[in-house]
Amino acid sequence: MALDNVLSALDAGLDRSLERLYALLKIPSISTDPAHRGDCEKAAAWLAGELSALGFRAEVRPTQGLPMVVAHSGQGSEGGGAGGKPRMKPHVLFYGHYDVQPPDPLEEWKSPPFEPRMSEDGGVKRIVARGVADDKGQLMTFVEACRAFIAAEGKLPLPVTIMLEGEEETGSPSLKPFLDANKKELKADVALVCDTDMWDAGTPAITTMLRGLVLEEVTVTGPNRDLHSGLFGGAALNPVRALSKVIGAIHNDQGRITIPAFYDGVNDLPPEIHAQWRSLNFDEKKFLGEIGQAIPAGEANQSVLEQIWARPTCDVNGIWGGYTGPGSKTVIPSKAHAKISFRLVNRQDPEKVQAAFRKFVRERLPKGYTAEFHSHGASPALQLPLSSPYLQKAREALKAEWGREAVLKGSGGSIPIVGSFKRDLGMDSLLVGFGLDDDRIHSPNEKYDLQSFHKGARSWARILAELAS
Amino acid sequence: MALDNVLSALDAGLDRSLERLYALLKIPSISTDPAHRGDCEKAAAWLAGELSALGFRAEVRPTQGLPMVVAHSGQGSEGGGAGGKPRMKPHVLFYGHYDVQPPDPLEEWKSPPFEPRMSEDGGVKRIVARGVADDKGQLMTFVEACRAFIAAEGKLPLPVTIMLEGEEETGSPSLKPFLDANKKELKADVALVCDTDMWDAGTPAITTMLRGLVLEEVTVTGPNRDLHSGLFGGAALNPVRALSKVIGAIHNDQGRITIPAFYDGVNDLPPEIHAQWRSLNFDEKKFLGEIGQAIPAGEANQSVLEQIWARPTCDVNGIWGGYTGPGSKTVIPSKAHAKISFRLVNRQDPEKVQAAFRKFVRERLPKGYTAEFHSHGASPALQLPLSSPYLQKAREALKAEWGREAVLKGSGGSIPIVGSFKRDLGMDSLLVGFGLDDDRIHSPNEKYDLQSFHKGARSWARILAELAS
Repeated sequence: MALDNVLSALDAGLDRSLERLYALLKIPSISTDPAHRGDCEKAAAWLAGELSALGFRAEVRPTQGLPMVVAHSGQGSEGGGAGGKPRMKPHVLFYGHYDVQPPDPLEEWKSPPFEPRMSEDGGVKRIVARGVADDKGQLMTFVEACRAFIAAEGKLPLPVTIMLEGEEETGSPSLKPFLDANKKELKADVALVCDTDMWDAGTPAITTMLRGLVLEEVTVTGPNRDLHSGLFGGAALNPVRALSKVIGAIHNDQGRITIPAFYDGVNDLPPEIHAQWRSLNFDEKKFLGEIGQAIPAGEANQSVLEQIWARPTCDVNGIWGGYTGPGSKTVIPSKAHAKISFRLVNRQDPEKVQAAFRKFVRERLPKGYTAEFHSHGASPALQLPLSSPYLQKAREALKAEWGREAVLKGSGGSIPIVGSFKRDLGMDSLLVGFGLDDDRIHSPNEKYDLQSFHKGARSWARILAELAS
Repeated sequence: MALDNVLSALDAGLDRSLERLYALLKIPSISTDPAHRGDCEKAAAWLAGELSALGFRAEVRPTQGLPMVVAHSGQGSEGGGAGGKPRMKPHVLFYGHYDVQPPDPLEEWKSPPFEPRMSEDGGVKRIVARGVADDKGQLMTFVEACRAFIAAEGKLPLPVTIMLEGEEETGSPSLKPFLDANKKELKADVALVCDTDMWDAGTPAITTMLRGLVLEEVTVTGPNRDLHSGLFGGAALNPVRALSKVIGAIHNDQGRITIPAFYDGVNDLPPEIHAQWRSLNFDEKKFLGEIGQAIPAGEANQSVLEQIWARPTCDVNGIWGGYTGPGSKTVIPSKAHAKISFRLVNRQDPEKVQAAFRKFVRERLPKGYTAEFHSHGASPALQLPLSSPYLQKAREALKAEWGREAVLKGSGGSIPIVGSFKRDLGMDSLLVGFGLDDDRIHSPNEKYDLQSFHKGARSWARILAELAS
């Protein structure tokens, strides 16, 4: 069988795969530090060189910032089916990033961050280096899977475009202009993103639910200037008091958000997912204990996993008004401010949530106050439907490799690239990654388990084979 | 009659009185500016010299900072009554301050701030100079009244001590140590303080109610560290949400404070005062309009004057927590803070209010949060009882001079010297001043009406005579 040959090639070539990964890890491609611009360009060139050698049409493409590596699989990859009718195979766009976080504080590293080494910890082999889990080791699982296909079968099983970014750790400022300028070239049937975690070291995961975000800033005005609280206190409006009253009314005692129509578009979790999450035996006590909590703060009838993955939220991210220095000042401030954000799920409409929030504030404000609003952004939740054929095939592939069902995870935070692919290229993303909770990404002694790297590459080989089937 | 002679002396000597006031105004005794330390000492010496010439035992007394002028009336002043039984006359301590605010911005002055001049505005004569209303012109009304008594009658009608401070504009840092070190010497039967305003240009006022103050800072803790609102939002506690809920619960919809037992010790306004305030036809609309409000924020069934003078309040003076910079940050803060102050009236007990507030917060905090408190000070309200004989006599005297009842004002803010006299010397204060709302104290072109100066001195002559009677 073709796939067996590919997997055998990956097993047999593991040492060579590691050598290549080490070569990439040795390049200190720290995107936030202008002194390392040359290293970032070097990493991009190295990757383009590797992909060219595999037969990709690979280029280092300039952006306003650090370059993008774009590579298209050559004529050898199957774009259509054999036989009578052409059977169209999906075209996939793989995304990863070659830039890394700065290694500081250097003194906490047990070995130099850009001199990769294999460590062993309780029998588990781990590659230690800056960027190995985030994201060089992860992106190389895909490159090595492609290499094995080409080595064993002479070609990829389906059309592949690879896009590797150099600014992920600095907020991807050049990404959207680049996507906009190259829409036609980059549009594929589905994106494959390898920058996420497994459920645990033995259980693969696919992140299928990403919460959306509405970011609001509200300013409440009472008196037209700051006042002396002795001379005016009692008669003067106090905007902190009014703002507090409104914020205090957003949640009821069951942790539910009281803004009318806020839950429009929120669905119950599909029974299959609900059952899966329950079977995970997630240790809520441990999760909360690590942040110093005995009880969860969300909706009373939801588990913690549901609260952070599948339910919408409202949080105050910042509040300020009046005197905040040492000691006291008897001032009644003219204005009070809050930054308030909402996490959205399912089909909640960001614009409707924003409008409902603003209406709620205006209606709840006691008489005499005014409110002004400023948006810091709004984006809908992203969800890969359970019925997606790409998802089903990825589940099959991962189950075959790991011997366990992949957990269909949510992510409470946003993953900007997925939103960009959806909005700018109209494309769903399949988020499959092999990182682990304890990989220490962004911290000293970042590591990536050898098993993540090896079985990660095998997983991608299986996923590509499934998607092409 | 003795008093008539004194008043005639004041009328006849007005030009000389003005000359002396101008001499004092020419000394730029700016207490906050170390470069003017010599001028402050010069002003103190000038005053001590004037008082010595009047027969006072006057001294410039060193403090940790700028000197204090202390003067005791000589043997000529009547310490007891004539006739069969010794009729003890009260010993009064007069307080004023010789230091002034800096004159900046200089370019807005129509004439140099330390070159006093008489201006005329719609037929009203006004003395223009820095410090003329705050407080040199006011303190000189008392000195000139003493001078007239001594000139016309050879002696003061009762024992007088005069204390003139040089650090009022910088928060009186040396005052308490000075009072503590000289308690016996400075203790009198009643203090006379001339640093307040009239009701309007034709209506005198006595400030008899000063609100107390409880200053609290509360810190609410949720999670043990700042969290990512995407990864933890929903399950994580949010201390801003909890603090807002508590602050929002302090006032009910009628503007009343809901903290249990908060109103213990609050009395209704005496009917006489209530009737007087009502008769003032205070322009609430104008007062509120100047601070940009259409409606007052205090208790629904109280007038604005009651809200700012006679009712207790709670104001948030500052609130902060989380991210307060530009843009957005998806953080759930570990802590939220607020500075909250209470204005107290009548017999409200600051310690009980503080304890009731802390209990209220602890009980209202949703489960899982903790609160810590820090006090920035607490002091009770001060009130000169309507029944005080000193007050009654001052009212008589002022009515005789101005042809109108003195308004018995409240002051929403604290006047620290009055608290010091009460706490440190166990002495009530009679606050009589002749300033007006439009005197522009602390601002360019500060002025004091000639009528305030002249009739102010006549008022003190009458008050001294009444107190001695």
